[in-house]
Amino acid sequence: MEDVQGSVDTRQIPINRVGIKDIQHPITVLGKDGRRSASIATFSMSVSLPHDQKGTHMSRFIQMLNETETEISAKNFNKMLSSMVERLEAESGYIEMQFPYFIEKTAPVSGVKSLMDYQVNLVGQIEQGHIDATLEVTIPVKSLCPCSKKISEYGAHNQRSHITVGINCSSKLWLDELIKSVEAQASAELFAILKRPDEKYITERAYNNPKFVEDVVRDVADVFDQNDRILRYYVHAENFESIHNHSAFAVVEHDKSV
Amino acid sequence: MEDVQGSVDTRQIPINRVGIKDIQHPITVLGKDGRRSASIATFSMSVSLPHDQKGTHMSRFIQMLNETETEISAKNFNKMLSSMVERLEAESGYIEMQFPYFIEKTAPVSGVKSLMDYQVNLVGQIEQGHIDATLEVTIPVKSLCPCSKKISEYGAHNQRSHITVGINCSSKLWLDELIKSVEAQASAELFAILKRPDEKYITERAYNNPKFVEDVVRDVADVFDQNDRILRYYVHAENFESIHNHSAFAVVEHDKSV
Amino acid sequence: MEDVQGSVDTRQIPINRVGIKDIQHPITVLGKDGRRSASIATFSMSVSLPHDQKGTHMSRFIQMLNETETEISAKNFNKMLSSMVERLEAESGYIEMQFPYFIEKTAPVSGVKSLMDYQVNLVGQIEQGHIDATLEVTIPVKSLCPCSKKISEYGAHNQRSHITVGINCSSKLWLDELIKSVEAQASAELFAILKRPDEKYITERAYNNPKFVEDVVRDVADVFDQNDRILRYYVHAENFESIHNHSAFAVVEHDKSV
Amino acid sequence: MEDVQGSVDTRQIPINRVGIKDIQHPITVLGKDGRRSASIATFSMSVSLPHDQKGTHMSRFIQMLNETETEISAKNFNKMLSSMVERLEAESGYIEMQFPYFIEKTAPVSGVKSLMDYQVNLVGQIEQGHIDATLEVTIPVKSLCPCSKKISEYGAHNQRSHITVGINCSSKLWLDELIKSVEAQASAELFAILKRPDEKYITERAYNNPKFVEDVVRDVADVFDQNDRILRYYVHAENFESIHNHSAFAVVEHDKSV
Repeated sequence: MEDVQGSVDTRQIPINRVGIKDIQHPITVLGKDGRRSASIATFSMSVSLPHDQKGTHMSRFIQMLNETETEISAKNFNKMLSSMVERLEAESGYIEMQFPYFIEKTAPVSGVKSLMDYQVNLVGQIEQGHIDATLEVTIPVKSLCPCSKKISEYGAHNQRSHITVGINCSSKLWLDELIKSVEAQASAELFAILKRPDEKYITERAYNNPKFVEDVVRDVADVFDQNDRILRYYVHAENFESIHNHSAFAVVEHDKSV
Repeated sequence: MEDVQGSVDTRQIPINRVGIKDIQHPITVLGKDGRRSASIATFSMSVSLPHDQKGTHMSRFIQMLNETETEISAKNFNKMLSSMVERLEAESGYIEMQFPYFIEKTAPVSGVKSLMDYQVNLVGQIEQGHIDATLEVTIPVKSLCPCSKKISEYGAHNQRSHITVGINCSSKLWLDELIKSVEAQASAELFAILKRPDEKYITERAYNNPKFVEDVVRDVADVFDQNDRILRYYVHAENFESIHNHSAFAVVEHDKSV
Repeated sequence: MEDVQGSVDTRQIPINRVGIKDIQHPITVLGKDGRRSASIATFSMSVSLPHDQKGTHMSRFIQMLNETETEISAKNFNKMLSSMVERLEAESGYIEMQFPYFIEKTAPVSGVKSLMDYQVNLVGQIEQGHIDATLEVTIPVKSLCPCSKKISEYGAHNQRSHITVGINCSSKLWLDELIKSVEAQASAELFAILKRPDEKYITERAYNNPKFVEDVVRDVADVFDQNDRILRYYVHAENFESIHNHSAFAVVEHDKSV
Repeated sequence: MEDVQGSVDTRQIPINRVGIKDIQHPITVLGKDGRRSASIATFSMSVSLPHDQKGTHMSRFIQMLNETETEISAKNFNKMLSSMVERLEAESGYIEMQFPYFIEKTAPVSGVKSLMDYQVNLVGQIEQGHIDATLEVTIPVKSLCPCSKKISEYGAHNQRSHITVGINCSSKLWLDELIKSVEAQASAELFAILKRPDEKYITERAYNNPKFVEDVVRDVADVFDQNDRILRYYVHAENFESIHNHSAFAVVEHDKSV
C-alpha cells in the first residue's frame, strides 16, 4: 500500500510543527512523597518536518501514548520528548499536556480536609537534543481591592482570581510547593470546604490583606526572584472583577539569564 | 438530479426535530424607544419530520436568514416561526437565537455613561399554529454573603454572579425594563466604568444589602409574581464564589397557570 | 457563631433547587468486567428548600464528595442521591456528574489497540424516595452524506459527528455495550490509531454506508426500541458539516410507557 | 478621595502589562469598498507600568471604548494604540480585538448568495512610538485526505478544517482579499447555502484536490511568500479529523526580514 506521507515534496517549504492535538489520555502524576495520583491529560504533540518530506506519520504520536503507562514526572516528560523525535525521525519536537491536579487542603480553623483542583500545563520543546520545559499552573485565589477598602466606610469588593505562573527550573520544584508559595501571595487562598469559623478567618484575612492585580503579580515575582532554582518565569493574574462584567489582569515576565 | 431527502422512509420513526445549529448571522434588535441596535446572533432552527419522509431540506433554514433583514422583535420572532414551518412544510418548529445586547448605563454618583452587555436567548416553538416563546436573559451582578458579613468583624466575601431569567409573557415586556427589575434584586449592579465615588457607592451598597443565592432567586421571583404580564418564569442564580473554586446556585420555577 | 442559613424565611417562596456546581473531583468508574478505571468528574449537586428556610448548608455537598471514595456504579449513584437528601434534610435532590470514559478499541484490520474517549453524564433525581436516573453518553462517529454520494460522480462529503444518547433502564446496561450498539449505527466508527489498511477499511465502509443525520437518529432509535431494558430514551445527532460552517442536527425522543 | 493606584511602589518590579480583558463592545468594520458592517468585538487592552507606580487607571481603557465610535480600520487601530499609551501615560501598550466578520459568498453553480462568518483577531503593540500589528483570521474550509483517496477503492475521508493565518503587512491588505487567497488553497471552500448542483461541485472539487494538513500550510505559505506586501506571517491549519476523535495540525512561520 503506497506511503503517500513518505513521498518527496518539492515546494521547498519546511514545516515548523506538524502533529496531533486535543487528544485525551489517562495519566499518572508522580507527587513529592512518592504519591501517585490519576488524572486525565489533553495532549498536543508535534515535530518539525524538513522541506523535502511530504508528510509526517501521525499514528506514531498516538502509539507513544498507548504503549507507555505515561507516568508523569519531570524525568519522564523529558524522555517522552527524546523518544518522540527519535521515533518520528525529526530534528525538533514539542509536547504540551494539560491536566487537573488535586491537593488535599486543611481548612485554617476547623481543620476540615478537602480537595482543591489546579490546572497544570507541561510545555516542552526539544531541538537538536536540547530540552527546554516550562511548568505552568493556574491557581484560583481571592483578591480584595485596596482602593475599594480605602475609600469605603465599610466593606471592600473582592472576587475570585486566577494566578497563572510558568516557570523554568534548574532543579526539581514540586507542584505542591510551587502552588503553596503562590497562594500565600493572594489576599486569601481558596478551599472546597470551609466551616463558619474558617469563613470568618478567610473573610478577615482578605480584608486585612488587600491587593490590586498589580500587587499580586509583583509579590509572586518577588518570591520567584528569590528562588534560585527558578531561572525564568512569567506571572499572569486575572481578577474576575465583582463590580464589572470584565476582568482586570497583569503580567510580569523575567528571564534571570538576561 | 435526484432529491434523496425527498424520498420515502419506511422505518416508521417520526423525528421530533431536525435542522441546523451554531450558525452566526447579523441581526438588528428593535428597542423600546424605536432604537435599532446591531448584534450578532447564533441560531438553532429545526422542524418535526413525519415518519415517512427521509430528510428535511436544510438549505431552506439558511435561506430564511439570508433573505430577511432579520429585525428582531417579539412580532418578528413569531413571524419567523410561522414562516419556517410553512416553508419546511412541517407540523411543528423551533427557533433559538442567542445574542449580546447592550444597554447604556449611568454610574450612580459620577454620572459617567458606559455600555453593559447582557446575553439574550429567544426560544420559541410553534405547534399546529400555536406559538410559545420564552425570553431568556443572563444578567451579571454582584452578590455579598450575609453569613460572611454576620460572623466576621469586618468585610464580607462577595463575587460576580449571573442571574438568568426566562419569562413567558401575555404582553410585551421590554428587555431594558426586565433587566432593570432584576438588577435591583442583587446586592449591587455592575457597570463597565466606575469612578472612585461610584466604587465607594457600590461597595457600601453591596455591604448594606447582603444576599445569599437563595435570597436572590426569591427576590426576583417575588417581583415576577407581582407582574401580571408574566405568566410563567424561571430564575436561576449562580455565584462564582470568591472563597471557593466552585459555584453556588439556586433555581425557582413558577407557572402561574398551574 | 450565628447560623444565618438556618434562620426562618418569610417570603413564602419555596426553592426548587439549591446547591453547588462546577466542582471537579476524582472518581473511580466500575466497568462490566469488574475493571476499575480512574476519571475526573464535574459535579452539580442540589436539593429543594422549603419556603420557610433561609438557606441550605452548601459545605455538606462537598463533604459527601470528600468522605467517600466515590466509586461510580448504578448502585452507588442511587446511594449518593439517597444519602444527599438525608444529609441535607431535603424532600428532593438532584445530582449530575460528567466525566470522560475510555474504552480500548481494536483497529478493524491491523488489530492495533488504542484508547478512545467518550463523555458520560449521569443525571439523577430523587423525589420523596423515588429515584429517576438517566445515563447520557456522547459518542463521536463519522457520517457520510447520501445526497452528496448520489449526485456526485466520485467522492462524498463526510465529517465527524456526535451522537448523544440518554437512556433510562429497567436493569443494568453497561457503558461499553451501549456505546458499541450506537457506534454500529454510524457510517463508520472512530479510532485513535488507524494503520493504512484500517484507514482504507473505514473510508470504504463509510462510503458504502451513507447516512443523513436523520438516518442516524432513526437507526439508533430502532435499536433502542428493540431493547426491552430501555424504558425511555432520547437520541441527538450533530454533524459538524464539512461543506458548511454550521451543524446539522436531529433528535428523536421516546418514552415507551406513554 | 485618595488615589491609591497613583501612589508610589517600592518593590522595584516593573509590570510588563496591566489592563482589562474580556470586555465586549459593538464596533463598525470598514470594508474595501467603503462598506461599513456592524460587529461585536471582545477587547483586551493593556499598558506597561514602571516599577515605582502602584497601579494603572483601569477605567480609562473602557472610557476609550465608550467615547469613540470605534470604527475599525488599519488606520483607526493604530490611532487607538497611540491614544491609549498617551492617555495611560505609558511607554508601551497592547490591544487585541476579536470579532466575527461576514462576507457574502456566491454558490459556485447555482449562484445563490449567503453570508459566511470568519473570526478576526487584530493584535497590536506600541513601544516607544513604534507600532507592530498583526491581522489574524480563522478561515473554515474542507480538507480531503490524499492517503485515504490513494489507498481506497472509492471515497476518501474529508472534514472541516480551520486555517488560521496571521500577517504583518507593509501596506493595506483587505480582509476579503486575504480570506479569498487562503480559501483557494483548501481542498474546497465552505458556503452557508449550497443547492444540489453546488454540493456536487464541492464534493467533486474536494475529491480532485486532496490535501494533507501539511499541504495546506505549505500552499498558503507559498502564496504569502509571493505577496510582497506581506512582511511576516504564520499559517496554522487544524483538521477536525473525521476518522479520529482528535485533530491533526501543522504550522509554518516565516519572517521575510530574517
